[in-house]
Amino acid sequence: MQLDLPETLYWQDERLHLLDQRKLPHVIQYIEVERLQDTWDAIKTLAVRGAPAIGVAAAYGLAQSMQDQHGVPAETFVQLLRDNASYLKSARPTAVNLAWAVDRLVAAGEKTPRYETLLAAAQTIHQEDLDICLAIGEHGAPLIKPSSRVLTHCNAGSLAVSRYGTATAPMYVQHAKGVPFSVWADETRPLYQGARLTAWELDRAGIDVTLICDSMVATHMAQGLVDLVLVGTDRVTANGDVVNKIGTLGVAVLAHHFGVPFYVACPSSTFDANTLDGASVPIEQRAPGEVIGEHGAHVPVSNPAFDVTPARLVAGIVTEVGILKPQELRQRFR
Amino acid sequence: MQLDLPETLYWQDERLHLLDQRKLPHVIQYIEVERLQDTWDAIKTLAVRGAPAIGVAAAYGLAQSMQDQHGVPAETFVQLLRDNASYLKSARPTAVNLAWAVDRLVAAGEKTPRYETLLAAAQTIHQEDLDICLAIGEHGAPLIKPSSRVLTHCNAGSLAVSRYGTATAPMYVQHAKGVPFSVWADETRPLYQGARLTAWELDRAGIDVTLICDSMVATHMAQGLVDLVLVGTDRVTANGDVVNKIGTLGVAVLAHHFGVPFYVACPSSTFDANTLDGASVPIEQRAPGEVIGEHGAHVPVSNPAFDVTPARLVAGIVTEVGILKPQELRQRFR
Repeated sequence: MQLDLPETLYWQDERLHLLDQRKLPHVIQYIEVERLQDTWDAIKTLAVRGAPAIGVAAAYGLAQSMQDQHGVPAETFVQLLRDNASYLKSARPTAVNLAWAVDRLVAAGEKTPRYETLLAAAQTIHQEDLDICLAIGEHGAPLIKPSSRVLTHCNAGSLAVSRYGTATAPMYVQHAKGVPFSVWADETRPLYQGARLTAWELDRAGIDVTLICDSMVATHMAQGLVDLVLVGTDRVTANGDVVNKIGTLGVAVLAHHFGVPFYVACPSSTFDANTLDGASVPIEQRAPGEVIGEHGAHVPVSNPAFDVTPARLVAGIVTEVGILKPQELRQRFR
Repeated sequence: MQLDLPETLYWQDERLHLLDQRKLPHVIQYIEVERLQDTWDAIKTLAVRGAPAIGVAAAYGLAQSMQDQHGVPAETFVQLLRDNASYLKSARPTAVNLAWAVDRLVAAGEKTPRYETLLAAAQTIHQEDLDICLAIGEHGAPLIKPSSRVLTHCNAGSLAVSRYGTATAPMYVQHAKGVPFSVWADETRPLYQGARLTAWELDRAGIDVTLICDSMVATHMAQGLVDLVLVGTDRVTANGDVVNKIGTLGVAVLAHHFGVPFYVACPSSTFDANTLDGASVPIEQRAPGEVIGEHGAHVPVSNPAFDVTPARLVAGIVTEVGILKPQELRQRFR
């Protein structure tokens, strides 16, 4: 399947290159990582974003940070690896894939404390991510019928992951097969990932996409213009609650009210069996300036980055092994 | 009741002066109307906005447009008045107060075709608006209990009306009485009336207000942080449906889902007995650029300016005669 999209990230000349998503859609520019802090900054400031892409970026970034540690004692190597891993994780505490990828590299490094081992582990994570996204696309594709009108929130697209995305993977698979359908991308305030990223990547791939504000989801559903919601997630908790970009809960409640099926797409690595429910997840409060922008009055702001959609509002979770009920994840992946 | 807020509009030196709300909160500047087109432009481009304020502005603007018609034959006067009235109405076809105010001046002018009659009629509408808003405030005030957390959408505030606003009038009345409460202002994309206007005017009046994005309403309600929703409306149809700024329906559905009472405040003139239901109201589609802004990709956009909240989601409508069920309006004002 060919997609006319720039790579979200790639490894070249022993360095991680990250598409700077803050500059999209107007500028296509890559960050060339030099120090570990570059990766941390890129994750923290959302230059790279989307649960799986953060995981892959963190893996490469962590590997790269150990490049110069040839011939140091194993213990020193492992200690530095662990320190760097902790530091990277602190960039986005809510993102379970970040911790998952970093921990995987730490485990590999503990076994074989060599840079090459870490790099190989990062490359494996990257390739697995590609394979997983394609499998998500194939499992989710039948949800999109000819003429379906799909609504998506935020960007769980090609830019969030390696190449196919999660929520967008079924769209790319159907589009490649020539199935006609259309997409409503909501803009996703405060950072406009829908307007900047999803609308841009779907349009660029030749998919019929229309941009709306988050506040317009209700009226489009009320008019019967939405057949299906498909979003990504940053974390699915043990009870099947879905933690995702702020605004997802609102879309899920509206979908429930208007009888529109609400699906979530994610790799099974997003499932966090160790967290009981959404209420237990620490929700990052971001800076007021993101909301006030150039328009708003300078008053106090509440700016939670994520919200929690209860499992009962979720029709199914599209994973690389098939579409599961939120509650089934626990049996399958505990 | 004293409010530390600039007047939304005033009549001085035989001219209408309109606070240019597009420039708020950063610049406080008045448009001095010279020709009828200035009023039309101000209404069309939302320099003046909010159902009642549009009505008052249109009344003064229409009167002013007839200033130089001294001594013309009555028939010519009335014909020009009607032409000017039609032209003004075309600026915002969904706004029932605009048509209502303009028609009232035409009726006055048909009876007594003199500029002075029209000006007096406009001044009467203005004074009535002040009285009505204060009455809405007094009837709605008991909804706001000590420590209530009120959520409002868009700006049905002082800036939308003469001085006290509609949805904000109960807030100003309670605040003047020293009742402590707080307000969530959602930003109201695409034009940010909540962020620019509501947050600004409430903060300036000394009310405890916090700004959130539209997409954050759900999570704040889910966490039990909202006790009451209070919004304005542009039109209530015969069956009690509420036509208001895009995004209102979403807030109403969420309020219903989370068990938060949803109230609408408006003068009884907002009731349109001649329109059966919300589905019969023409909904203005506005320019794509409002949504795309500087951030978004250049893709197709759907940008409806209003949505329709069904009567069954509305706990009550706060009017100058008291709080009514949406269905009661028909009996009362038909």
